[in-house]
Amino acid sequence: MGRTVAPNAVAAVSEQRQWDRLMEMAKLGAITGADGSPGVNRPCLSPLDREARRLLIGWGAAIGLRPSIDALGNLFLRQEGTERGLAPVLAGSHMDSQPAGGRFDGIWGVVAALEAVQALHEAGIRTRRPIEVVAWTNEEGGRFAPGCMGSMAYAGFRPPQSWDAVTDGEGIRFGDALREHLALEADLPRRGLGVVEGPKPHAYVEAHIEQGPILEKEGLDIGIVTGIQGSRWFLVELTGESAHAGTAPVSTRRDAVQDMVRAITALNALMEDPTDVLRFTVARIEVAPNSSNSVAETVRFTIDFRHPDKAVLTERGDAIEATVKAAVRTCDVTVTERFHALPAAFAPEVTEAVARAAAAQGLSAKRMPSGAFHDAQFMVPLCPTGMIFVPSRKGISHNPAEYSSPEQLAKGARVLAQVLAELANG
Amino acid sequence: MGRTVAPNAVAAVSEQRQWDRLMEMAKLGAITGADGSPGVNRPCLSPLDREARRLLIGWGAAIGLRPSIDALGNLFLRQEGTERGLAPVLAGSHMDSQPAGGRFDGIWGVVAALEAVQALHEAGIRTRRPIEVVAWTNEEGGRFAPGCMGSMAYAGFRPPQSWDAVTDGEGIRFGDALREHLALEADLPRRGLGVVEGPKPHAYVEAHIEQGPILEKEGLDIGIVTGIQGSRWFLVELTGESAHAGTAPVSTRRDAVQDMVRAITALNALMEDPTDVLRFTVARIEVAPNSSNSVAETVRFTIDFRHPDKAVLTERGDAIEATVKAAVRTCDVTVTERFHALPAAFAPEVTEAVARAAAAQGLSAKRMPSGAFHDAQFMVPLCPTGMIFVPSRKGISHNPAEYSSPEQLAKGARVLAQVLAELANG
Repeated sequence: MGRTVAPNAVAAVSEQRQWDRLMEMAKLGAITGADGSPGVNRPCLSPLDREARRLLIGWGAAIGLRPSIDALGNLFLRQEGTERGLAPVLAGSHMDSQPAGGRFDGIWGVVAALEAVQALHEAGIRTRRPIEVVAWTNEEGGRFAPGCMGSMAYAGFRPPQSWDAVTDGEGIRFGDALREHLALEADLPRRGLGVVEGPKPHAYVEAHIEQGPILEKEGLDIGIVTGIQGSRWFLVELTGESAHAGTAPVSTRRDAVQDMVRAITALNALMEDPTDVLRFTVARIEVAPNSSNSVAETVRFTIDFRHPDKAVLTERGDAIEATVKAAVRTCDVTVTERFHALPAAFAPEVTEAVARAAAAQGLSAKRMPSGAFHDAQFMVPLCPTGMIFVPSRKGISHNPAEYSSPEQLAKGARVLAQVLAELANG
Repeated sequence: MGRTVAPNAVAAVSEQRQWDRLMEMAKLGAITGADGSPGVNRPCLSPLDREARRLLIGWGAAIGLRPSIDALGNLFLRQEGTERGLAPVLAGSHMDSQPAGGRFDGIWGVVAALEAVQALHEAGIRTRRPIEVVAWTNEEGGRFAPGCMGSMAYAGFRPPQSWDAVTDGEGIRFGDALREHLALEADLPRRGLGVVEGPKPHAYVEAHIEQGPILEKEGLDIGIVTGIQGSRWFLVELTGESAHAGTAPVSTRRDAVQDMVRAITALNALMEDPTDVLRFTVARIEVAPNSSNSVAETVRFTIDFRHPDKAVLTERGDAIEATVKAAVRTCDVTVTERFHALPAAFAPEVTEAVARAAAAQGLSAKRMPSGAFHDAQFMVPLCPTGMIFVPSRKGISHNPAEYSSPEQLAKGARVLAQVLAELANG
């Protein structure tokens, strides 16, 4: 196995075609960043998301891939294998973006999987097992929190109705948006929901931009991803009392903004980490009535906390509620954990296949954990799972300035093609 | 003058009619507060605002009041005087509300002015001078900041186009909302804009709920308002850089939420006041992209700072920008002053008329400054100006729980009727 398994397929990966498809996708929700960079705002289950899915389905149809959709809206494009009844190898990522996101996060993993399958197809390589290109619903959590709903439901990690009542910024419920989406996509064949209603996949591979600075800094082509740090998301809700900013004495107020400042200050102390490994972020704040001369009655803010060490994740995460409650002075408080993913380790079957492919193709690579979480996390209990990273310029992501070059992305797709050929014949 | 000038008019004030009209107005934008209280959300220049104006115009028309509207949308209902060419006495307030406001703030001052004029009418009293009931556009600043646009433009304090580019939460420009409003109200006679295009009024009187706890606590009927504390409003804009919450090391971030916390903490120290007279409020916060797993790129927050002492207002207000700039660590900062009103003192002609009316009617009263600002503030340089307060239950305002009883409000309207009779014959 020290050599390229499918040299013709690797050669058939088209740098230009893959790049053109990414640029085509980037038109759907195109925005311009503060620095003039071309970014993307493509919320999950939006008309733009549907346009992107239709574009993908069309590209797949041209090489005979059959689309299907499940109860969470996860989209699959299937290439049959030569032997009946074998579990498929899945490869993909997601097509939704952050509200001010880039042109590569998620969408590249889907386009790369299609590129790899198309390269196999054009090289005349038929694998024993089916290969399915998958686009998971709502990985980002940008419109509906938390993210990874599609993969979590697929994996049976949460029941599919778990998030029906979650609302977006306009008050639209996830359940309603999903129902509308499924109605609009009713012409696509419907499939059972993942391992809840069907067999386990044989393996899962996700290609993704690194979203961190390491590969670029070390001048490497490929990240052999060994696992994903754990994430815990919380929602803090503070309820005080609105009052007139001109008449209510400060001493008598129950000001939710002031209690938020106290809570974040205390959380900063709890989350201090001189090693700079811990990630603690408050990035979403909603104030009501949010009028400059009415003391804030309520504040809702999110906490995103991540760490690769399960012990740290557990200990400090479990201390969040008590820290907030000790810090606030006048408001009622609720702290709700919205998402909890333990650190996940990827399977040697996949990491070694990635390492072999990179080596066979003469690419420089290193083993590394993922700082971001990904749908791959939820596949870990189901089947051998792994990821392939390519460099991100300056490590910038979740930002229009996010960039990986056509050449870097083509190298990633070539590694993926070889890994898929190997796994789908295994 | 120690006795009631117009006893028949005072007797003709109808507690029931005034209350019924307030409850009719409260249907326009009715909301329910967290505690179940019936509140109002009637944004300025909204369809609800127009409905409220039409209702008022209809009530005025029934007693022969002629409506007119100026370039800022300020609405006037005019009762002619017996002598030609005399400047009118103005009485009124505003009809817009806070986003989660009560049923009395503003609207009562307009309905009370109409009630007073109607009582004079029904008592057969014709004054020498005209009386105009006025409803000022956008006092609250809840939809478009700052507030008091209508009265500021009327008084020539700012040019009428000053706020055209101000946008509401949906990105609608004030200039566009006003243009639409004037087009929809094109059937109303148009008048020149205040003292910019016409003569000064003879006097201005505004009835208003106290919005503070003093009258209730001391068991008094009437507040003889001596003036208004000064207000300064600022907008702070912090610009950092968005980044992935999972991958961007905390040490490398330019996190606008964290700089906001630092800025507010520093401002709290600047604004500390053991006497509890100073009012410092941060009540409106906008974060972008406001996604829980994207480090905040920008935060905009408002500062509402008030004090009755001009020296304190100047000194601490002028220190805000430097305090914010010293506190932030990583973001670019701009601090913009959006509104600056010095403390205003009302005219003895009006305060003494209010005191006389209360005394003649056997009502308990005290002289007091206003903690809130009001349109009256901008009338001070134009003509003798004053205000009449009635008690607010628990001092609660800018909240659906805001309440004054039918009886308390009728007492206020009776004082207003007598004051108008006196001033409009002066």
